[in-house]
Amino acid sequence: MHQIDIERIERDINALAQFGFNEADRGIYRQGFSEADMAARQWLRDRFDELGMAHRMDGAGNVIGRYGPDDRPCIMIASHLDSVPAGGIFDGVLGVIAGLEVVRTLQQAGIEPDFPIEVVGTSEEEGRFGGMLGAQAMTGHLTREWLDSARDEHGHALKDAMLAVGLDPHDALHAYRRPEEIKAFLEIHVEQGPVLDMEKTTIGIVEGISGVFKWNCRLIGKADHAGTAPMHMRSDALMGMVDFAHEIQRIIDEEGTDKSRITIGHVACKPGFPHTVPGEVDFTIVGRDLDVDVMTALAEACERVLAAIARRHKLRFEYEQMSWLKPAHCDPELMQLIEAKTRALDYSYKIMPSGAGHDVQFFCGHTKAAMFFVPSVGGVSHAPDEWTHWSDIERGTQLLLECVMELVCEKVEA
Amino acid sequence: MHQIDIERIERDINALAQFGFNEADRGIYRQGFSEADMAARQWLRDRFDELGMAHRMDGAGNVIGRYGPDDRPCIMIASHLDSVPAGGIFDGVLGVIAGLEVVRTLQQAGIEPDFPIEVVGTSEEEGRFGGMLGAQAMTGHLTREWLDSARDEHGHALKDAMLAVGLDPHDALHAYRRPEEIKAFLEIHVEQGPVLDMEKTTIGIVEGISGVFKWNCRLIGKADHAGTAPMHMRSDALMGMVDFAHEIQRIIDEEGTDKSRITIGHVACKPGFPHTVPGEVDFTIVGRDLDVDVMTALAEACERVLAAIARRHKLRFEYEQMSWLKPAHCDPELMQLIEAKTRALDYSYKIMPSGAGHDVQFFCGHTKAAMFFVPSVGGVSHAPDEWTHWSDIERGTQLLLECVMELVCEKVEA
Repeated sequence: MHQIDIERIERDINALAQFGFNEADRGIYRQGFSEADMAARQWLRDRFDELGMAHRMDGAGNVIGRYGPDDRPCIMIASHLDSVPAGGIFDGVLGVIAGLEVVRTLQQAGIEPDFPIEVVGTSEEEGRFGGMLGAQAMTGHLTREWLDSARDEHGHALKDAMLAVGLDPHDALHAYRRPEEIKAFLEIHVEQGPVLDMEKTTIGIVEGISGVFKWNCRLIGKADHAGTAPMHMRSDALMGMVDFAHEIQRIIDEEGTDKSRITIGHVACKPGFPHTVPGEVDFTIVGRDLDVDVMTALAEACERVLAAIARRHKLRFEYEQMSWLKPAHCDPELMQLIEAKTRALDYSYKIMPSGAGHDVQFFCGHTKAAMFFVPSVGGVSHAPDEWTHWSDIERGTQLLLECVMELVCEKVEA
Repeated sequence: MHQIDIERIERDINALAQFGFNEADRGIYRQGFSEADMAARQWLRDRFDELGMAHRMDGAGNVIGRYGPDDRPCIMIASHLDSVPAGGIFDGVLGVIAGLEVVRTLQQAGIEPDFPIEVVGTSEEEGRFGGMLGAQAMTGHLTREWLDSARDEHGHALKDAMLAVGLDPHDALHAYRRPEEIKAFLEIHVEQGPVLDMEKTTIGIVEGISGVFKWNCRLIGKADHAGTAPMHMRSDALMGMVDFAHEIQRIIDEEGTDKSRITIGHVACKPGFPHTVPGEVDFTIVGRDLDVDVMTALAEACERVLAAIARRHKLRFEYEQMSWLKPAHCDPELMQLIEAKTRALDYSYKIMPSGAGHDVQFFCGHTKAAMFFVPSVGGVSHAPDEWTHWSDIERGTQLLLECVMELVCEKVEA
């Protein structure tokens, strides 16, 4: 059996961690199209050079290295090089470096793949400009209008950010890859959640990316003096929110699955004074499930419950659906391959949804695509203390190698 | 029977409404020691002049007009002339103008009181600097240290505000009135709550000012990605607050009275992002009751419930008691007098607590003091659309006259 080399992986991940590293909080600041992000992309191209791989940066900023024959569809191993502000060293990077290590291991073993391998460091996955630019570009989920209008939270235009690093924004539309160019898409990523770590499980085989809806909700009652208004004469908007929050678990129990999530992440009372009964409360609801019908049922239940609570508390209820992203399902054959290889390696595993978004979600439905996780210690991610044990990185990369070796070999019909 | 004149009252209230009136929102901006506030005080002194009353401004800015003999304890009729920002035209002003009208009516009837009447426009009742300066000064609830250190929410020092209008802050300590100088203290005020208006009742005889405690609370859990953290693996701080809020009515039912209030007026989630499980929630609790033992029981129940919820949700609970003000009880004999006069006038009434603070609370315990309310339409106050029907103003002032006429006359023992 061919073995990947964890020391090379560790060296590469640590090398990439220098790009955008901030001494003060020890976080990575490598936001899409920043100087650090572009330097990391050049670093990756230098590694492709070392391995003698053909490489290029496409119009969306994706860096693509190719190993193997020119005329056949590729096995694409991809994840992102950009980070959130104050991010960790593994998020995205793992999927790129694992791809590099797979090619390295095959080369050293003298294996010539029948199908080419493409290792891709995708661009702007973390949504600085509100999308997943690199993956969207490759799968045809971009429009000129969006490219022209997208801005980050500070008001900086995507097109200006791209022009500043020498990219023509409209060239992103040339990054499109036809489905028949890609035989399979694989992504390995840190879980960014607590499940594998808490359950002492090595591999999470992702069955799909949960769909997600986001609502901005408002309950409107009447602001009153907290001393003069008796409890039973109030129209306390916060108490409406509280009653709804109290029903969340019931809604999931009745309408959802163990993959359902409903979260209130933001609450603001108006006027927000300690001595005033809140006349208005603004809050967000983010709901998720892997099944679009379940998502719909959850959303309908939220609306029904909020409307009933508003009536009971003499409140007005308004909401605006800010987004509704359908679930994406991984390819069953690729999932079976991953599962078979995981069993062969005798790693513990579970089949699970991804509650977070990933590059892979745009490739699901476009081509055969799949993903697997390795554990995040304590579930921490998007923070400087994100961590995954090197032994789990090693196992995940070995699993990737086994899958890729199967995929790059021409099947000889019996 | 002598009758007060509602037309004179309406004229005076409208005249005072010009001081600090803001055309844009039609609110009154007459914060303590502002130019408008001081002009209103001068206006009141001019009215005292018209009635031939002795008058002065004490070291705290209270404007005091006196009618009757010099050598006997007074019947003090007081309320405040300052307003909150964007306040209404009746809050405080009613109690001063009603006192003026009582003196006017007695003068016109040729009644020479056996005991003097003092009509007082108190200073800084609305707490721009965090206290009720005028009433505290007259009743000995001031310290030099507080006078030197108090600041408003914009950081302006009380002492600078007083110096700017020609007052020496330390002179406020000379405003103290010995209890034996005051035979009785009476305040008429708009209710600033919905009870009288909803119950179609004319007079609210105040049995006391509810005590109040204010806590800044914090529940600390763990911020997680709202997609990757399953519901049962979260330490969602907001859900702890929600569980507590859900218990408020039960706590009042079990430990409180119909005069109890518990309010959460402010909530802030950290980080406060829609896609992040709140790792921390800061919120305020304001509790009130008229009985100090009930207040204590409510506070203890809040602490017990929050500690239990914190354990259940794997959260840490912290709180800081920002203030604890004991209830103040009105004088039973004065309450009986008001009740008897209300019955004689055949006005509907109820005996009720005041959930809001008023000048009277510092006179309770210092001397015999009592207060009564007239209805606020819709319970609205501290807002430009604060309103009380003129017919209720008329009845309230007539009631005040009846009470004062009883109090200023020497009782001849049989």
